[in-house]
Amino acid sequence: MEKKKYLLNESDLPKSWYNINADIPVEPKPVLHPETLEPVTPDFLSQIFPMGLIEQEVSTDRYIPIPDQVREIYKLWRPTPLVRARQLELALGTPAHIYFKNESVSPSGSHKPNTAVPQAFYNKVEGVDSLTTETGAGQWGSALCMAGSFFDINVEVYMVKVSYSQKPYRRLMMESFGGEVYSSPSDRTAYGRAVLAEVPDTPGTLGMAISEAVEAAVTSEGKKKYSLGSVLNHVLTHQSVIGEETLKQMDLAGEYPDVVIGCVGGGSNFGGIAYPFLRENLLDGQKTRLLAVEPAATPSLTRGAYAFDYGDTARMAPVLKMCTLGHTFVPAPLHAGGLRYHGMSASISALYKEGYIEAVAVPQLGTFEAGLLFSRTEGIIPAPETAHAVRVAIDEALEAKELGEERVIVFNLSGHGYFDLAAYQEYLGGALQNYKHPQQAIDEALKHLPKVAV
Amino acid sequence: MEKKKYLLNESDLPKSWYNINADIPVEPKPVLHPETLEPVTPDFLSQIFPMGLIEQEVSTDRYIPIPDQVREIYKLWRPTPLVRARQLELALGTPAHIYFKNESVSPSGSHKPNTAVPQAFYNKVEGVDSLTTETGAGQWGSALCMAGSFFDINVEVYMVKVSYSQKPYRRLMMESFGGEVYSSPSDRTAYGRAVLAEVPDTPGTLGMAISEAVEAAVTSEGKKKYSLGSVLNHVLTHQSVIGEETLKQMDLAGEYPDVVIGCVGGGSNFGGIAYPFLRENLLDGQKTRLLAVEPAATPSLTRGAYAFDYGDTARMAPVLKMCTLGHTFVPAPLHAGGLRYHGMSASISALYKEGYIEAVAVPQLGTFEAGLLFSRTEGIIPAPETAHAVRVAIDEALEAKELGEERVIVFNLSGHGYFDLAAYQEYLGGALQNYKHPQQAIDEALKHLPKVAV
Repeated sequence: MEKKKYLLNESDLPKSWYNINADIPVEPKPVLHPETLEPVTPDFLSQIFPMGLIEQEVSTDRYIPIPDQVREIYKLWRPTPLVRARQLELALGTPAHIYFKNESVSPSGSHKPNTAVPQAFYNKVEGVDSLTTETGAGQWGSALCMAGSFFDINVEVYMVKVSYSQKPYRRLMMESFGGEVYSSPSDRTAYGRAVLAEVPDTPGTLGMAISEAVEAAVTSEGKKKYSLGSVLNHVLTHQSVIGEETLKQMDLAGEYPDVVIGCVGGGSNFGGIAYPFLRENLLDGQKTRLLAVEPAATPSLTRGAYAFDYGDTARMAPVLKMCTLGHTFVPAPLHAGGLRYHGMSASISALYKEGYIEAVAVPQLGTFEAGLLFSRTEGIIPAPETAHAVRVAIDEALEAKELGEERVIVFNLSGHGYFDLAAYQEYLGGALQNYKHPQQAIDEALKHLPKVAV
Repeated sequence: MEKKKYLLNESDLPKSWYNINADIPVEPKPVLHPETLEPVTPDFLSQIFPMGLIEQEVSTDRYIPIPDQVREIYKLWRPTPLVRARQLELALGTPAHIYFKNESVSPSGSHKPNTAVPQAFYNKVEGVDSLTTETGAGQWGSALCMAGSFFDINVEVYMVKVSYSQKPYRRLMMESFGGEVYSSPSDRTAYGRAVLAEVPDTPGTLGMAISEAVEAAVTSEGKKKYSLGSVLNHVLTHQSVIGEETLKQMDLAGEYPDVVIGCVGGGSNFGGIAYPFLRENLLDGQKTRLLAVEPAATPSLTRGAYAFDYGDTARMAPVLKMCTLGHTFVPAPLHAGGLRYHGMSASISALYKEGYIEAVAVPQLGTFEAGLLFSRTEGIIPAPETAHAVRVAIDEALEAKELGEERVIVFNLSGHGYFDLAAYQEYLGGALQNYKHPQQAIDEALKHLPKVAV
């Protein structure tokens, strides 16, 4: 019989995270203070983050040791399986080999605990026992609430309003782990109240929810810190365990990927799986294509500007040079709530602009079609975000079929869709749509970029 | 660092199922026809089951080879991890070693696919392309719909009414896999219509749902067969992969269990983990305690009669000698919908009566308390059914602490509670209760046992 799963032992769990800053072949851009638009100081950042994470954010060390206490918790679900999707291959009739890295086996159901656990750890080490955060689809909020329950840290989550109502079970999960969850914009912050006064029926955005969570931390007189689930360098660094394990597992499978695929919102699951392969491209002469998949409704890489912009809507978060749709952009209420962010990780943005990674934007309906085909062949119902990666993995496999190529495709199954079944139901009932290309809204939002002299 | 997970490779996947009929040290009782109350013939059974499964039902072979096609699909998630619950041990301050077999990692989230896949396979082999079944909490229905999607079999599910409304996401999952789901009692069967006419607001029972599913198969003129997710011998045989893997994994851990724990509704997840250990007790002189946990609200082992009774409420299913609360018993609407069955697997009933296995009944609130403690230490939110096993594993660990014993405890984490979060929410909000001991209802139902001369 053929092998399906490539498993590693706990002793194969990476001992270090990989930091792309060490090898990135593009000039680093400064992070700016949102008010002065001058390069930030650690002092400003330390209002919201613990020093342990700030150091990782700016570190250029290639490898950052994973603390034992974090590895101990990683072992609850890591190493995760790499699976050959043989039943999907068969259904497609493709000569391609399709592998997926199954990050959905974590207790909260996605890759997010890879960074939630170390973030909780580094905060706890510095005496922080209360964290604020935002969440879109709820994957990040669930992960941080779980990590909070392990380290006895209170977690306050601002959940984007449209997801709060679309995904009630995600909220229940966060509360089961002891977290507090608020629909954002909320009346708990000055910014939330201001938005509600102006646009009472706003669906909310990740940008707004970040503003609320940052405000809640900044105004807590040092009692609370803020935690971000994507975009920042330390987050992508933590997620590198995905790619490091995948490298070892491809070795077990005796193959090397022609293409590595992940969906992108802020970029952390894609960076997590892709950057160790990028290192092999840069340092070892490999030629794996690294392919980021974004929704056509929030095409920050393929249609955004590459410019300095605020990380949040209220302009309280640091300003980064990134591919952005503009911090005032309000995306359509598509179900992939985790991919509705206006910006993108700075390193992914730079690498895309310089041609080291590729990107493609896909409309919503095709992602659900792909998600269902994957469910009915491989059994796992992917999250709507993840279904974007599945869609493009299938497209690559079909292209390989047309060309008669034995292409080796690896994608990151970043999370399951157990809490997104209402979305699948809407798709099955014909109630979902492809959103119109939002060029006009993007053009409008891009008028509000900060005027940066750098 | 200490090891948390004990993993097996695909090559360690059992090649055979273990059949307790070969070694059971009690006299087998005949299965009776529900109308004549005489021993059934294969002819009667073949109206509802394919011959491949009927043969397994009555086989006394110790080992039954697992077909390659079934093992190939098992590899999607099997072998499952055995995990040492070190964070739970620490929280309890117990010297006991607590292990759990994590069956929640299957795509549908429980142990049920272990039998759903072979049942779909043996039906397909005999040309059946349409199955009917019942489901309580929805774990079984999800598993069979998934298996149906793999083998291109249509699946028609009668879901107990109280669960149909309590667990909407389970229904959505079944429909995502292509299944048809009906709230039971329904107006699709003569029996369902009769019940609705008499008691329009009945919460439904597994017994009623079985009646509807059996009727739908029997009246289909051979077009549909019926599939049962627990109770029967072939089901427990398929589930033996759980215990066989656990034996190998305890070997890796260098320990042997003092006690093996599982929750019981019809008995399949408990039989699945316990019977291979019972074999070692019987043939190899081991002395592992085998402990079945049932809800205090449906205490078929600890408070039922050991008698011949119908498997369903409408008296269409075969009559078995078993521990039963009476086929007319209507349990309280407790959240562990999978444990609301009036009867119990014949072999577990007989083994309990003869003292080869132990049983304990626990009230609802303590199971949710245990489920939350487990979530907040080990990260996995257990299904309400599974929380019964968690409760008793914790109780055993606390007893070991009191006695200063290094007890080795293994329990079956039969499923996750991602779809049961509304129940946890009710618990957290103080809206759940312990149901009163149902002795009066049991006494009343036991008056309706069939009069069997055997």
